[in-house]
Formats: sequence, structure tokens, C-alpha cells
Amino acid sequence: MAGMTSPLSPAAFDLTGTLSRRAQSMNASAIREILKITQRPDVISFAGGLPAPELFPMQEVRDATLAALDRYGPASLQYSTTEGHPPLREWIGAQAGIPAGNVQIVTGSQQGLDLLGKVLIDEGDVVLVEAPTYLGALQSFQPYGPRYVQVPTDEEGIDVDALEALLPGLNAKLLYAVPNFQNPTGRTLSAARRRRLVELTAQHGVLLLEDDPYGALRFTGEPAPSLYSLGLELHGDPDRNHVIYSSSFSKTLVPGLRDAWVQAAAPIIAKLIQAKQGADLHTPTLNQMIVTELVQDVLPRQIERVRQAYGERARLMLDRIRADFPDGVDYTTPQGGMFLWLTLPDGVDTQALLPRAVERKVAYVPGSPFYALGGGQNTMRLSYSNATPEQITQGIRALGDTLREALAER
Amino acid sequence: MAGMTSPLSPAAFDLTGTLSRRAQSMNASAIREILKITQRPDVISFAGGLPAPELFPMQEVRDATLAALDRYGPASLQYSTTEGHPPLREWIGAQAGIPAGNVQIVTGSQQGLDLLGKVLIDEGDVVLVEAPTYLGALQSFQPYGPRYVQVPTDEEGIDVDALEALLPGLNAKLLYAVPNFQNPTGRTLSAARRRRLVELTAQHGVLLLEDDPYGALRFTGEPAPSLYSLGLELHGDPDRNHVIYSSSFSKTLVPGLRDAWVQAAAPIIAKLIQAKQGADLHTPTLNQMIVTELVQDVLPRQIERVRQAYGERARLMLDRIRADFPDGVDYTTPQGGMFLWLTLPDGVDTQALLPRAVERKVAYVPGSPFYALGGGQNTMRLSYSNATPEQITQGIRALGDTLREALAER
Repeated sequence: MAGMTSPLSPAAFDLTGTLSRRAQSMNASAIREILKITQRPDVISFAGGLPAPELFPMQEVRDATLAALDRYGPASLQYSTTEGHPPLREWIGAQAGIPAGNVQIVTGSQQGLDLLGKVLIDEGDVVLVEAPTYLGALQSFQPYGPRYVQVPTDEEGIDVDALEALLPGLNAKLLYAVPNFQNPTGRTLSAARRRRLVELTAQHGVLLLEDDPYGALRFTGEPAPSLYSLGLELHGDPDRNHVIYSSSFSKTLVPGLRDAWVQAAAPIIAKLIQAKQGADLHTPTLNQMIVTELVQDVLPRQIERVRQAYGERARLMLDRIRADFPDGVDYTTPQGGMFLWLTLPDGVDTQALLPRAVERKVAYVPGSPFYALGGGQNTMRLSYSNATPEQITQGIRALGDTLREALAER
Repeated sequence: MAGMTSPLSPAAFDLTGTLSRRAQSMNASAIREILKITQRPDVISFAGGLPAPELFPMQEVRDATLAALDRYGPASLQYSTTEGHPPLREWIGAQAGIPAGNVQIVTGSQQGLDLLGKVLIDEGDVVLVEAPTYLGALQSFQPYGPRYVQVPTDEEGIDVDALEALLPGLNAKLLYAVPNFQNPTGRTLSAARRRRLVELTAQHGVLLLEDDPYGALRFTGEPAPSLYSLGLELHGDPDRNHVIYSSSFSKTLVPGLRDAWVQAAAPIIAKLIQAKQGADLHTPTLNQMIVTELVQDVLPRQIERVRQAYGERARLMLDRIRADFPDGVDYTTPQGGMFLWLTLPDGVDTQALLPRAVERKVAYVPGSPFYALGGGQNTMRLSYSNATPEQITQGIRALGDTLREALAER
């Protein structure tokens, strides 16, 4: 029969034309492209959002891996349940005061965002985001066709008055927020506003997605209750909580194992499980077991260590900014996490300025990509988590020179 | 301001009502539900599709893990590139005779299917699938709204004559096929048909997705060329190949690390990268490094070991089927992989029969869920990969008794 198909002239096949509309609307992450430029070894980069690798608990991970392999044998390398390793779910649930059944393990919190987008967002659904917001969330949600509406923010995070004015008639599906040491701004939502945010969203039937990868890394100030815990208080039942919580071991332990989780009400967890079955079946078995070995003793010590180091780096960066930056540059003062945020006078374009900073051997991320609907051309994100004191001192001096030059030209 | 929001009565919040239409159309996997029933320790289960854990190279994985941690230090636990660990992509590319740039590492081949669905399938796009086909692929594609069209199959796999008759005017986007030791049937697409399948799909502008997790596990018969290699031959350029290839280390090494890959043309790889950034950023770093340590020496030995064991198990199961089954039961004779497929006389419902099999302490998966558009009520899948000789002998006898009883009642 093969002979019947005569000399092969495959139709000229436009592979790009076979892509879904969804794929055609995807763009390479602006940050990712920038990071490539800034990865020259002679450039001091405040651009990446990398945890400090010299703080990784290498020996502890090694020991935990051997312990997990010994404890579970071949089961540590076999297929496992979509929900996640039961002892890890138990532990996470216990921390939050909820049953393990309200915890779904995911392969990095990025997967949690993708799966939540998949099970919640219909094309055209209104998704409220901070302005600016975490770029990765925008990337996760984008394929599901949300209509973004930006919520104004100030030093205390989301402006709840502005939100209250926005909500009526908006029929929003979801509000996405990073309340602690936000990526990209480093800002923290104040305690008073948290309660109102939870109430407002409940009253307007808007799901509230609290993304909290950095919450444990507070180095100054008073902890505020999680939105999730306030939702729990409000509804009195984890299966009626309209707040969904996402967090990760990437910033507290190590990122490369991709262990993270989502806390949500049963109807949402049920769909997350089904979506995750189709997305990757389950999070790697051994990786979950390794983290489970570490949560009891190593994790608290490690959090303390990271907190202290990032606190020192943040303080140094702020000191150097105060000393070396020209007047007219506004900066945030993070109480934890990995980032701070600069706002330059109107008219300065940080994207256009980047090549000149790189010439002076320092790099940052321009702020504009963090705005779902554009804006923020005069802003930038700096990360201090993965820089030595020398790099911070030298890099901030170089950046100060770059900014001074830019301001002088205006 | 908090006082302004008066005594809290959160709107009764219908959380189920917040789910996307996509999520509302998701169903719990029929198999998953069945597996729960059949996991009683006293039941011999041919239902799961699990590799044999007693064959896992435990010591080798342990050594490889320590080697990777030593070799790469903290980089083994840090964030890494979305495309995947470069030496692993190089190795995979070299096996296929293509550049590493045409290889995308994914978190289990299930993720490859999900990402391909995301970047290729628009709502209503025609996706051709074998009847029956791999259930997990249906689950991965479903959220993207395909319109399935079933391609008839026989002992040699896809019936290419029937396909040729189907294609004109169908405007199909994609044909999904498992050509080697298919899940669920264990059937293999004959060499002559492979060439015609590649040609036909090229001529009609249909992408051909070759899912090949079992290909290395041939225990009898002659290997046939992969559809991907035939596409490469046809187009002479990996960046014009309309065949997309998916495979995994789950069946050859271990499943729990979730290391798999996709080979595709550059325009598709570019979008897979963007989609994967939003889906999980990257596959766990350490896991990719562990597998890279193993591919050179351990993988070939391990494949040989698994092949031999599964071959023995398949032969025994077939012997026992011939000895213990009543007349009128049709079975496939797999040349590799983990599964075989039974077809009972019309009118026997294998779903209804399952409780009676479980009473006799043996379990299988009813075949119907593997049909995208229904059918196959009189079929079932048996897996021999994870059963001892005693379990096979005893389980097939019990299943034979169940079938004899069912046939006698007709």
C-alpha cells in the first residue's frame, strides 16, 4: 500500500500557522530577555530574582535525600498521588490550622498559578491585579484569556478605597495579590487594609488569591496576618474560604526542587487535582520527600539564616542608595523578601537607560513589564538577595552615576 | 477606615460557581477512581500502569544524586533554564540526530502533552486520536477544547486507509499516536504504515504527535523507525518536521523524578518554552542532573533488564490467557511495553463486570474510558509490568473464571 502514495512532496507546512491563538498571544518574558543581556560575568546584576545559593543547606539536603531514599526505598522513585506526599500535606495543613485535604502540592508555585488560572479563568473574566504586579502571574493567567483591571497601590500596598470604588458592577472573578514584600516593589500590605481587602472581596463575590512566597522572610517590622487566615476567620470553614493561598519552599529552602503548594476550599482543590493530573500527574516524589525530611528542624534554622542575610543586604543597599543616588529618586523600604523598587522622575525611561547601566557594569529590571496594562516606564526593580556587600556597594555607586547622568540630561 | 465596612456578612459565596467552564467540563479520571477500588492489598491488580519498582536502580540513583550534588554544588538546587539542563538536551538531541535546540525538557511527558495542547489547540480544532487511545492525552488536551475524531485501528495500529478517507476536508490540526506498544492496547504500528502515516499527515497539513514512552522496551520483533525520524527524512530539516516526538525516562529509569522531553521544530519549541515558563518555570534542576549522570552507562543496562523482565511477564500472561480463558476472548500480543488488551464478545460490559472480578481478587481497567467518543464496553486493559509470576498465574485464572461465568450468562 505504501507505493500508492506517490513521490513525496509534502505540502509546504507553515508550522507557525499551526499555533493556537493562545500561543500566538504569548510573548517571551521581557525579563528573561533582559536577564540574558545582564548575565555577563563582569556585570553586577540586581536584575534576577535569585535566592542566595551560598546560603543553601547543601549538606542537609544531601542527608535528607539519603534519608528519603532509605526510608521509602523504590516508592521514593515511583509514581505517586496527584494531591502530594501525605506527610508534607499534613505538615503544611497543620501550620495553617487546616486539614491536609485543603492542601495541594504543586511543582513550583508557578504551577499553582497556572492551574488556578486553568480552573478559574474563562476568557474575558475580570482579574484584578496590583499595579505593578508579579510578572509570572500575568504569564500564567494569560493563556486563559483574562481581562486585567489594575488596582492602584501605594506604600501600604493595595489602595482599598480605590478598590472599593472599582468593585461595584465590575463582576470580577479574582483578585491576585502578593501582600508580603511584593515582587516587584518589596511593599507590604498593612494589617488594617488586609482585613478590609478580605471583606470587600467576600462581599463582592471576588476570589482572593494570596501569593506568599516571601512571607517567612521578614527581617524587620511586625508580621501581619495572612489574608488566608483572615478569610478562615471570616467564613469559619476552610471549605468556604474565598481566599486561596499559594506558597513555596523555593525562597526558604531551595528553588531547584520545585516544591510548593496551594491552600484552597474543597471545590477548588477537587478541580486542581483534576487539572494537575493532566498537567504533570504529580510533583516529583523524591523531591517532596526530601522537603518533608527538612521541614521540622532545618527549615526554621534556614529561614532565620536567610532572613538575617537578606536583612543585612537590604540595609546596605538602602544605605548606599541614600549615599550615592541623586535627589528625585524614590525608593521603597522592604521589611522582608528580596526586592526594592525605584521610581525616577517622570520622563526617565528605565528600559532605554539599561544599556548605559550595563556599560557601567550594573543591571536591573525595568519596571514596565510588571504592569498588566502598561505604565511605569520610570520605575525599576532591584534585587539584593543574591549580591555580596562589595557588589552592592559598587553596583549602587555605578547605578547612582547612571541615574545622575540621566537626570542631568533632562 | 476599617470601621467603615460594617458588621461582616460575607455574601453566600458559591465557590463551585466560580470555576471556569473548562474546569466544569473536567471529570475525575475513570481509571483513577477504579484504581482506588482495586488497591486493596488482597487484590491482584493488572489495572495500574506502574513500572516494576523492584527493578529500579536504587543504588545507581543514589550514587548519581551524590555525584550531581558534588559536581554542581548549589547550582543543582538553584533555579535553572526553562529549556532544560544543557547536557541532557545535548544527549537527547544526539540520540535523535538533531540539535539540542530542538529538545525541550518537561516535567513528565504528561506536561509535554499539556503544553502541546496549550500551544497548538484552539477551541473546536479537530484532533485525531486512535480508538482506543491514551487516556492521559485526552485529559491533557481537554481543557483546550479539541473536537476529537477517532481513527480506526486494527492489529497493526492505525488503519491508514481509513485515515486517508477521513482526512480530506477535515481540516485537522493534529493527529496523536502512540506507535509502539500502545497504551492501552499494546499494539505496534507496522513499518509500512508508519511511512504512509507520516506522508498522509504532511500532505494534509496535519501535525503528527508521536508519543513514545515505551519504544525502548521492545522484547520481541523488529524495531520500526520512529515517525519522528521518518518526518526528519521527509523534510530534511528538524525545523520543518511536522512530526513532534514525546518521550520520557519514566518507563526506562524511574517515574518519580518526572524527567521527560519533547522534540519539535523551532517555531513550536519557542512557544513550548514560553508556555512552560508560565506552567512551572523549569523542570527540577537536581532531577535533570541525576538522569544526566545515568544516561551513559546505567540507562542501557537498565533498559535491557526491564525489557527482559517485562518480556517474561508478558509471555507468561499470554500463556496463562491461552490456558485459562474461555473461547471468544480476543487478546493482543504485545512486542514490548507494559500492556495487553482484551476484547470480549459483544454485549459483555467490562465496567459492570469489574466488581465481580474484584470479588475474585483480580482487577483490570475497563476499556471504555480510552475511547475519546465512547465505545469499547466489551474491552479491558491488562498490565503485566508490575506483577510477579505467581500473581500473573493466579490473577489470570481468577479473571478466566470471571469471564467464563460472564459468558455463560449471556
